[in-house]
Amino acid sequence: MEILRSIPEMKAWSRQVRQAGRTLGFVPTMGALHDGHLSLVKRSRADCDRTVVSIFVNPKQFGPGEDLDTYPANWDADRNLLEPLGVDAVFLPTRGDMYPHGFQTTVTVEDLTGHLCGESRPGFFEGVTTVVLKLFLIVQPDTAYFGEKDRQQLQVIRRMVEDLNVNVSVVGLPIVRDADGLAKSSRNQYLNPAQREIALSLSRALEQARQRIEAGETDAARLRREIEEKFALHAETRIDYVSVCNADTFEELDVIQDNVLVALAVFVGKARLIDNCLIERVPCKEPC
Amino acid sequence: MEILRSIPEMKAWSRQVRQAGRTLGFVPTMGALHDGHLSLVKRSRADCDRTVVSIFVNPKQFGPGEDLDTYPANWDADRNLLEPLGVDAVFLPTRGDMYPHGFQTTVTVEDLTGHLCGESRPGFFEGVTTVVLKLFLIVQPDTAYFGEKDRQQLQVIRRMVEDLNVNVSVVGLPIVRDADGLAKSSRNQYLNPAQREIALSLSRALEQARQRIEAGETDAARLRREIEEKFALHAETRIDYVSVCNADTFEELDVIQDNVLVALAVFVGKARLIDNCLIERVPCKEPC
Repeated sequence: MEILRSIPEMKAWSRQVRQAGRTLGFVPTMGALHDGHLSLVKRSRADCDRTVVSIFVNPKQFGPGEDLDTYPANWDADRNLLEPLGVDAVFLPTRGDMYPHGFQTTVTVEDLTGHLCGESRPGFFEGVTTVVLKLFLIVQPDTAYFGEKDRQQLQVIRRMVEDLNVNVSVVGLPIVRDADGLAKSSRNQYLNPAQREIALSLSRALEQARQRIEAGETDAARLRREIEEKFALHAETRIDYVSVCNADTFEELDVIQDNVLVALAVFVGKARLIDNCLIERVPCKEPC
Repeated sequence: MEILRSIPEMKAWSRQVRQAGRTLGFVPTMGALHDGHLSLVKRSRADCDRTVVSIFVNPKQFGPGEDLDTYPANWDADRNLLEPLGVDAVFLPTRGDMYPHGFQTTVTVEDLTGHLCGESRPGFFEGVTTVVLKLFLIVQPDTAYFGEKDRQQLQVIRRMVEDLNVNVSVVGLPIVRDADGLAKSSRNQYLNPAQREIALSLSRALEQARQRIEAGETDAARLRREIEEKFALHAETRIDYVSVCNADTFEELDVIQDNVLVALAVFVGKARLIDNCLIERVPCKEPC
C-alpha cells in the first residue's frame, strides 16, 4: 500500500495507473474509518483495477464552533483497516498543500444546498464541493464512492460533477449500521454508553416514519411533529432538523407523495448525528 | 478542420488526441475573432501537436442590460479565419448543452475579482471561471491560451487553475493592436468612425501614463485624475474605471511602486472598451 503525502506524488501515481490502462476507484474520507467507509473501499476494489483512499480532515467544511479541532484521527488504526482490503494507495495531503497561502477559489452548488445540512451549517457544502473537486482533479479517478448516510452530500456532488463536466462516475452506497440500527459514523466515538443508547432514537424514529408512510400517512407536518416529540423526551438531545422532504430537491413537503426522504440531524451530547431514510411510493419491505 | 457541436463529440475527439500521445492546445473564445485571438491560435499551433478553438457566447458572463443579445457573431467569417491557420477542431457547444435545466454550480475566485471589471460587472468573473472550468474539463487540453487585454481574467483563471489543481498550463499573450494603437476587440465592431477615433484615447492615455511613471511620477491619485480629465473632453465617453493598481492583487495604489498596472474601462457610445498597460519598476522602452 503506497502512502502518498504530496499532490505531485499523487498525480504521478495516478498518471502511471492511467497510462497502464488500469481503471482507478477513489474513496475520499476524513479518516476515523469505520465499516461504512470500508464498504466503499470493498466496492471500489470489486469495480476497479486500482483503488486509492484519501484521508484529509478538510477545514473548509467545518464552521466556527464545530468540531474541527477534536475530529477523531487515528492513522495507525486507519492503515490497519485499509491494508488488508488491498487498497493500492492512500493519499494524505497536508492542509498547507491543499490550501496554500492566497487560496481563494470556491465551488458552490446553489439550490440543493439551501436545505437540511446546508441550511444549518452555512459554508459546509461549499467546503465539501471545493475539496472534492480538488481531490477529483488531483486523483483523476474513473469512479468515486460515497455513502448514502450523507445523502445530501452525495446528490450535491453528483450535481457538481454533472454541471462542471467532471470526468468521474459517482457511486452512492447504502448506509452501514450497527446491529442495533445506529448508523456508522466517525462521530459515534464522541458518545458515552448512555448517549449511544439515546442515539438509537434516530434510526428508530426513521423506521417508525417509514412504517407510518407505508401505512398511508400523507401529512408531512404531523410526521415531523411526531418525530420531534420523541426527541423531546431526552434532555441530552437537541434537534438540528427533522425533515420530510422531496428526495430529489430536498424541499420540505406538505403532502407526502412520490419519493420522500425523511432526514434527521440531532445533537446527542456534543455529537451531531445524521441519519436518513428514502421511502419509495411503492411500499418496500426492506428496513431503512 | 473538425466541427464538434456536442460535449460528447468534443470529449471523444480529445480522448483520441491524448491516447495518440499528442499534446493539445486550447483557445477558448466567444467568436467574432480578430488578430488578438489569432495570435493565440498561432502560438498554440507552434507549441502543441493539436489545437482546438471553442466558440461559445457565454450568457453567464453578461449582466442585465449588457450586450449578450447583440454580441457580434459571424461563424462563416470565424471559420474562414481559423481554417487557414491549421486549427484541428472547433468546439461549438449550445447554451442548452452547457447549461441544462437544473444547472446550479458556480466557481468563484474571491479576492482578485473584487476590483476592476469584477467590481463594475457583478457576476462577470463567476461566469468566466465557471465556463472556463467546464471547457477545460470537456476539452482537457495540456495548455490554454488567453490574451493580456483581459489581464484580470488571465490572472483569475491562473488562480482558479492553481487553487483547484486543474491539469492545464495557462499561457498569456500580449495585447494585439491596430497600427494606430487601438487594442483589438470584438466590441470594436460597435464603433462608428468618429467613435473609433475617440476610442484611441484609451491607448494614448495608457502610453502617457507609462511615460509619466517612467519619468518618476509616484502619485497614483494624480495619475488617475489626469487620465480621467482626458476622457472628460469627449461627450460620447463614459468612464467605467480608471485604475492605477498593484499588478498582482489589483488593489488600488496610493504610491506607485514595484509593478504597477494602469487599467481602463471606458464606454465609447455603446461599446465598453478595456485596455491596460503593465509598467515594470525598471523602465522599459517597449510601447504599451
